[in-house]
Amino acid sequence: MPADYKELKEQTLLANLEIQQRNLAIYTWGNVSGFDKARGVFAIKPSGVPYDQLAVDDIVVVDLDGRKVEGELNPSSDTPTHLEIYRAFPETGGITHTHSPHATAWAQALRSIPILGTTQADHLAGPIICTRVLNRKEVDSGYEKNTGLLIIETFRNPESGMEIAGVGPFPEEPLIFAENPMVLLGGHGPFAWGDSPAKSVYNAAVLEECAKMAWMVMSINPGFSSLPDYIVNKHYERKHGDGAYYGQTKA
Amino acid sequence: MPADYKELKEQTLLANLEIQQRNLAIYTWGNVSGFDKARGVFAIKPSGVPYDQLAVDDIVVVDLDGRKVEGELNPSSDTPTHLEIYRAFPETGGITHTHSPHATAWAQALRSIPILGTTQADHLAGPIICTRVLNRKEVDSGYEKNTGLLIIETFRNPESGMEIAGVGPFPEEPLIFAENPMVLLGGHGPFAWGDSPAKSVYNAAVLEECAKMAWMVMSINPGFSSLPDYIVNKHYERKHGDGAYYGQTKA
Amino acid sequence: MPADYKELKEQTLLANLEIQQRNLAIYTWGNVSGFDKARGVFAIKPSGVPYDQLAVDDIVVVDLDGRKVEGELNPSSDTPTHLEIYRAFPETGGITHTHSPHATAWAQALRSIPILGTTQADHLAGPIICTRVLNRKEVDSGYEKNTGLLIIETFRNPESGMEIAGVGPFPEEPLIFAENPMVLLGGHGPFAWGDSPAKSVYNAAVLEECAKMAWMVMSINPGFSSLPDYIVNKHYERKHGDGAYYGQTKA
Amino acid sequence: MPADYKELKEQTLLANLEIQQRNLAIYTWGNVSGFDKARGVFAIKPSGVPYDQLAVDDIVVVDLDGRKVEGELNPSSDTPTHLEIYRAFPETGGITHTHSPHATAWAQALRSIPILGTTQADHLAGPIICTRVLNRKEVDSGYEKNTGLLIIETFRNPESGMEIAGVGPFPEEPLIFAENPMVLLGGHGPFAWGDSPAKSVYNAAVLEECAKMAWMVMSINPGFSSLPDYIVNKHYERKHGDGAYYGQTKA
Repeated sequence: MPADYKELKEQTLLANLEIQQRNLAIYTWGNVSGFDKARGVFAIKPSGVPYDQLAVDDIVVVDLDGRKVEGELNPSSDTPTHLEIYRAFPETGGITHTHSPHATAWAQALRSIPILGTTQADHLAGPIICTRVLNRKEVDSGYEKNTGLLIIETFRNPESGMEIAGVGPFPEEPLIFAENPMVLLGGHGPFAWGDSPAKSVYNAAVLEECAKMAWMVMSINPGFSSLPDYIVNKHYERKHGDGAYYGQTKA
Repeated sequence: MPADYKELKEQTLLANLEIQQRNLAIYTWGNVSGFDKARGVFAIKPSGVPYDQLAVDDIVVVDLDGRKVEGELNPSSDTPTHLEIYRAFPETGGITHTHSPHATAWAQALRSIPILGTTQADHLAGPIICTRVLNRKEVDSGYEKNTGLLIIETFRNPESGMEIAGVGPFPEEPLIFAENPMVLLGGHGPFAWGDSPAKSVYNAAVLEECAKMAWMVMSINPGFSSLPDYIVNKHYERKHGDGAYYGQTKA
Repeated sequence: MPADYKELKEQTLLANLEIQQRNLAIYTWGNVSGFDKARGVFAIKPSGVPYDQLAVDDIVVVDLDGRKVEGELNPSSDTPTHLEIYRAFPETGGITHTHSPHATAWAQALRSIPILGTTQADHLAGPIICTRVLNRKEVDSGYEKNTGLLIIETFRNPESGMEIAGVGPFPEEPLIFAENPMVLLGGHGPFAWGDSPAKSVYNAAVLEECAKMAWMVMSINPGFSSLPDYIVNKHYERKHGDGAYYGQTKA
Repeated sequence: MPADYKELKEQTLLANLEIQQRNLAIYTWGNVSGFDKARGVFAIKPSGVPYDQLAVDDIVVVDLDGRKVEGELNPSSDTPTHLEIYRAFPETGGITHTHSPHATAWAQALRSIPILGTTQADHLAGPIICTRVLNRKEVDSGYEKNTGLLIIETFRNPESGMEIAGVGPFPEEPLIFAENPMVLLGGHGPFAWGDSPAKSVYNAAVLEECAKMAWMVMSINPGFSSLPDYIVNKHYERKHGDGAYYGQTKA
């Protein structure tokens, strides 16, 4: 019943195209997947196909054992990373990986991004964590799978994450995955997620914008300080809390 | 008589669309309002609606008691900030809030922008002030209203503003609101205003451009100095003074 | 005989429009003039008119005594600056003034741009000079005229120019105007020129690109050094010397 | 038989146009050539012709003795550089030279670009080398030919290359030309190559993106370190090694 996956594949296609429209990657340097929890499958970009040649039937559907269930092409080489994340956090509806330049620069600098303003606090209530670099063993065998596992491990044990620039070590308390929808993979680049493929691209764009601003803050005022907790929480809650009053849906 | 507000709503719609056209915010990260002093109402962007889906009847009209007088949607969550500014400075015709990246970086760096060149002096006769960060009490109750009050307070007592980068404390003398049509809200981002919604977006673009240049000046010459007063005043006066001779209107 | 100036006005119009097309200024923050040496007049952008509303008959024609000889609108407020330059260097065919961000940042930083690479050497055989800031007397009376005179003086006595970043004082030897077709006006922004209006915009774009690169070089390698003279001269000569072999015209 | 070169010229034309589409150079500041090894000729952009005026018959065909075998126009002034590279490395299918701003800034800063992340490792397994500056003798006679020879020499003796920023001297081991498809010419700018004209532009875009990120990394974390070898090799091999599994071709 191939038609079953049509909507999932269409959503995933549109989200992949948005990578290019929002300048989050050049060439094929990014991919989006979309997860259907009920059926335990996710749709993902095929490997190495330019965005402007991408059609809905090029999108590949894969199950949580990594078996292709629909599609002719090879799925993204990052498929095992997406897979591990959906396994560990099945409420996730979409994942985006890009090489957007400012976020990637932070990942390459091996620094977590401090929370410096309300732009970031509107989307997560703290710094944006950068993972450690994968070790040799993790790279030599099951590299992309281990990339997913490292992201999961880092959310469970954030003290393994890289130093927050200008602030210090990352706090120990576990990070809630759905509430911190973005990460920097140390030495590599950004991943972001959300409850749909489109929302995961949105969060990838948020990350790029926060990374750009934080980079500039560091040169304008090297003695910058983090936004006080009471403002961080206020901004996060007014968009995401029980009493959220931003937007139209909770009017 | 809903048709009464049509022109105000149209002006406000066009000004909101210009935020996107001039790259002053991504997604819905900005809003413009337009004030009708005679009737004591202002029109404002609805909360969370993407610019390219915005129609004139989506624009919400609110009175100075914060009551919606026209429109189906929720007004911007920043409405109480706009309201307090129109109350305190009723000659203001429009207000723009964005998260444009360079201006927001300065706001996050908690630094006022020095006056370094004639680009800035063409629009205001001094530094661009950055407010202090709101305190816990101001945030916990009436956050957006207190944001407006903080901007007003900062114009009355500029010495409460943040240090001018590379220069020192902000001078004590009150800032004239209409003549200094832009501010950085500490830890948050820029607000700008003018005698119309369109003029307020113009000033938001001016602020972004001045913020970008000042950021670069600091790395080109860390020992930079402010533009001498006699040039600041000359440029401001040739555009805004009694003997202004820039443009066509005073020919 | 108003039709006489049609070609000059058209060339000047097209060059003004290119300011916007090449992102050398936002709004009306730039102007181009074109000089007809034989008739002793120049065409220039009207003051404060947006580029996308500009028609050929809006272009104003002015003689070297500053009298308007054709056109209804006020000429650019910078007209006296252009006038002085055409008077002093009548071989000049066009002048462009912009507030392009990187060049303006250097002008605000009060630093001359060192010659760091062949991109710059393809267009002039040395640093790009930044003038001193005008003094109070020059500003208080005849500001725009004195701006032109300062540019002229600086080319005659370059040692009055600002320090070359990372290099030291500007050499004393007079700069040949036609061979150094760009300048930073200290605290203000860039002017560029050439043998036609179009060529002057080209040189304004060259200046912006060189300013952007030099800004980055300073942070990549604070101990950078200037390009050796033998390469500077080679690149300048292969494009502009007697034996020039770049392009098609001297084949 | 002029029609023989049609495909080579068309490929070369399209690759030249891509320089502009991908913002790798303004005006005519870049050129691409394409090599036909079997016939020992290469096609190249004519000198000084704007990209948007370029037609397929403007493309010039030159043999490895530098003789024009087809075309009316002068070939790029950089033709002798391309020629020497094709002579030394005849497996090369295309060469691109641009003045893209971030790559050119590194070339002007006389620093090789360290390998900081997987974006770079996806394309070459090490730093991007910056050559020394040509000496006076090399410039005074046969400048463009010597530019090519310097690139060749630098790949054979990389220890003559410039220091890797923040890392130290370049390792001595010869660089394999096809596997390190990009170089910074000290004081000038980037060259890139590949097995086709299109691929050489691709590599020029990769270089610009890596240069941009590395520049930002240096200011985010001045104490940055290179990506560990085991990740560098993993990323390079998954795209280019015997067991490559990126893309569709080796499915």
